[in-house]
Amino acid sequence: MESKKFFLQESEIPHAWYNLIPDMPVKPRPMLNPQTKQPLTHEDLYPIFAEEVVRQELNVTDSWIEIPDEVREMYRIWRPTPLVRARGLEKMLDTPAHIYFKNESVSPVGSHKLNSAIAQAYYCKKQGVTNITTETGAGQWGAALSLAAKHFGLELAVYMVKVSYHQKPYRRSIMQTYGAQVIASPSMSTKAGRKIITEQPNCQGSLGMAISEAVELAMATPGCKYTLGSVLNHVSLHQTVIGLEAEKQMEMAGEYPDIVIGCFGGGSNFAGITFPFMRHKFSGKYNTRFIAAEPASCPKLTKGVFQYDYGDEAGYTPMIPMLTLGHGYTPANIHAGGLRYHGAGSIVSQLMQDGFMEAVDIPQLETFKAATMFAQSEGIIPAPESSHAIATAIREAIKAKEEGVKKTILFNLSGHGLIDMAAYDQYISGDLRNYEVTDEDVAAATSSLEKLI
Amino acid sequence: MESKKFFLQESEIPHAWYNLIPDMPVKPRPMLNPQTKQPLTHEDLYPIFAEEVVRQELNVTDSWIEIPDEVREMYRIWRPTPLVRARGLEKMLDTPAHIYFKNESVSPVGSHKLNSAIAQAYYCKKQGVTNITTETGAGQWGAALSLAAKHFGLELAVYMVKVSYHQKPYRRSIMQTYGAQVIASPSMSTKAGRKIITEQPNCQGSLGMAISEAVELAMATPGCKYTLGSVLNHVSLHQTVIGLEAEKQMEMAGEYPDIVIGCFGGGSNFAGITFPFMRHKFSGKYNTRFIAAEPASCPKLTKGVFQYDYGDEAGYTPMIPMLTLGHGYTPANIHAGGLRYHGAGSIVSQLMQDGFMEAVDIPQLETFKAATMFAQSEGIIPAPESSHAIATAIREAIKAKEEGVKKTILFNLSGHGLIDMAAYDQYISGDLRNYEVTDEDVAAATSSLEKLI
Repeated sequence: MESKKFFLQESEIPHAWYNLIPDMPVKPRPMLNPQTKQPLTHEDLYPIFAEEVVRQELNVTDSWIEIPDEVREMYRIWRPTPLVRARGLEKMLDTPAHIYFKNESVSPVGSHKLNSAIAQAYYCKKQGVTNITTETGAGQWGAALSLAAKHFGLELAVYMVKVSYHQKPYRRSIMQTYGAQVIASPSMSTKAGRKIITEQPNCQGSLGMAISEAVELAMATPGCKYTLGSVLNHVSLHQTVIGLEAEKQMEMAGEYPDIVIGCFGGGSNFAGITFPFMRHKFSGKYNTRFIAAEPASCPKLTKGVFQYDYGDEAGYTPMIPMLTLGHGYTPANIHAGGLRYHGAGSIVSQLMQDGFMEAVDIPQLETFKAATMFAQSEGIIPAPESSHAIATAIREAIKAKEEGVKKTILFNLSGHGLIDMAAYDQYISGDLRNYEVTDEDVAAATSSLEKLI
Repeated sequence: MESKKFFLQESEIPHAWYNLIPDMPVKPRPMLNPQTKQPLTHEDLYPIFAEEVVRQELNVTDSWIEIPDEVREMYRIWRPTPLVRARGLEKMLDTPAHIYFKNESVSPVGSHKLNSAIAQAYYCKKQGVTNITTETGAGQWGAALSLAAKHFGLELAVYMVKVSYHQKPYRRSIMQTYGAQVIASPSMSTKAGRKIITEQPNCQGSLGMAISEAVELAMATPGCKYTLGSVLNHVSLHQTVIGLEAEKQMEMAGEYPDIVIGCFGGGSNFAGITFPFMRHKFSGKYNTRFIAAEPASCPKLTKGVFQYDYGDEAGYTPMIPMLTLGHGYTPANIHAGGLRYHGAGSIVSQLMQDGFMEAVDIPQLETFKAATMFAQSEGIIPAPESSHAIATAIREAIKAKEEGVKKTILFNLSGHGLIDMAAYDQYISGDLRNYEVTDEDVAAATSSLEKLI
């Protein structure tokens, strides 16, 4: 643990978020209104989301969106976050690679999710909204939104994926301590939930199902809006504070990353760490590799198909051009609950098509091995989600050693795993297992959908 | 959450720990060898502790002890810690008081305990020790020592108080993830443990019992030393980095505290935050109030007797001049496991006698109410232990409002409570209760011991 940290001043918290779309050589295809199959309009989304959020979601022209003072003021509670040179891990691996990580686990809720939660809660409040709803997997997003909602005086209902509700009771308690209502999904409180429970009484839920329930409740409740923690463009936008800070900090370290890695569920932390660096790949200045690390049990980037699909299980959301396993896909009950999502957002899906980034899928046991190495060498117990990024960084560092080349690797530590110790307990006692997804599984899940390419 | 943070540079991490004893108007009485009843010598302690630790323990002449480079290098992982003006809490209380807290929860293990764990592990390693033992209550000290032991390549066995072992399984998993062996105490692995289990088969343990087991194992194992997380002088010494940093940060804030508060179990975080400020009370420069906040269920400072007593249940340790409830006292199973200790260290016990500090005892329910207010206004979920300090700060801030005076209050946030969510869950569902200790209970527990004054 002789690791070196690079700190920014509070004044260096970014003043604007970076919107990647205007710089993309090929723009993402538009999302579609599921009824008309026409490109989505602002009016289509206003009933669901806060208006400013909708404008950000559909903004394909402005590269920089100013961060409101009220949001920036709250960022100051824990931002700028440290960039750390992981010398302890380098030493343990005996690698010539330099490994850096951006430590987003230092937020009061323990993950990067607060970056967007604060912005979304602020825009809801500003518009006079009184109640908000959302879904959460492992509970990182739900915890972040609970804190943001409390700060801005909003009532919040969180649909938490049932398997995580039981696997991670502590994160449910965190949301309740911040004052939120937490409901295990699928639940009997919505039409979508009741349908699922009727058809599959023992269903343990998925992010797609929880989204359906949260959207339905928001649409049915006056003065209520829905908020989403990943997948969509505006969430990626808010998360770019991560990469913008990291860019300055890598400069302080006197290096530029050869490889940038983020774990991948819906894409929010991956977008956050990579998009600010990706613009320099578009411009030809740097030929950085960008790697999304997904679970082997939910391999939409490595095995999915590129097609228009729904963001949720019931089909309430717009149709998104996505790399997907099908919106009806229920991933295995891995502990990285935040990565159990069937599709990737439209920007990342397009970047994959155009070869600007790559993806790897990692088996559960490899992620926990990597997490334990990281805990013992760097002191921080990582979230199971973030451990996918760590495992990928370790793979690349070992490759650098084998090839005898010095590589500069940067990954995002999206959160800590202190609420996930039951998972570590299972790993230590040998009770964890891997889950594989075959091409046949994918073909079955996506057979009813028409491919885009 | 409009709170303001005060940061120091890494170069401002203290270069020396502050030893209060040389400045004390009345020195603490010496600890006694339990066999000879003579003042303790270095030789008495060498079989138990690392030699440098023993020298620090018995040093009553040097005000400043240099921090070794290797220790300071590890402090840089998370130190200096922020000082925060808790404007969110002030606003919630509508108080004219200014409330500051030193945030020791930002360490990788989530508490201040790492400050001494690193030092003790370092001195053991330097001396050629290969194995160490310790006790832990809630697991904060055990987790810290596990990380420090891993860093310096030492094998560690932790005796964890049985009630906490079951109440806080996640903290056990943290220690195991860092590579330590964890044993529920009382256990069958030691003579002391076997005796307790034989006499009280359902005994849930206490810090005093766990200390007996850890000391016994260390004494019986070649190349093995014992380490302690609180009570003793050298632990208080290591923790003074907290107050030394806070002193500089209060200067940055342009204020000096009227009241300094720490929660109190064995005294380590209380000493850490208060001792550097207390020297200015001795010199007459400031008339600061120092308040130790203990649980109503373990009120040694407010209800205990001042006498020579053992630090552990079996009577293996030296006799310490302490305010005590008797070394056989088993506190109620409150969630603030780190405060379930029967006595106070010799320095604090002397300071209480001489009127340099005061103490309050807080019922469990009040601490969780305060913790929830703090979580909702400042974003951080505090450890049940630290919540005693928060509750005390809130009492003083309300008093300031009633009296219409501006007071500057500083407390130490010794740790976060993310591993303690089961306790919050019980609080939210109304299942928590208070425990009272009567004067009769204390008289019964201390009847066999001779009072010092």
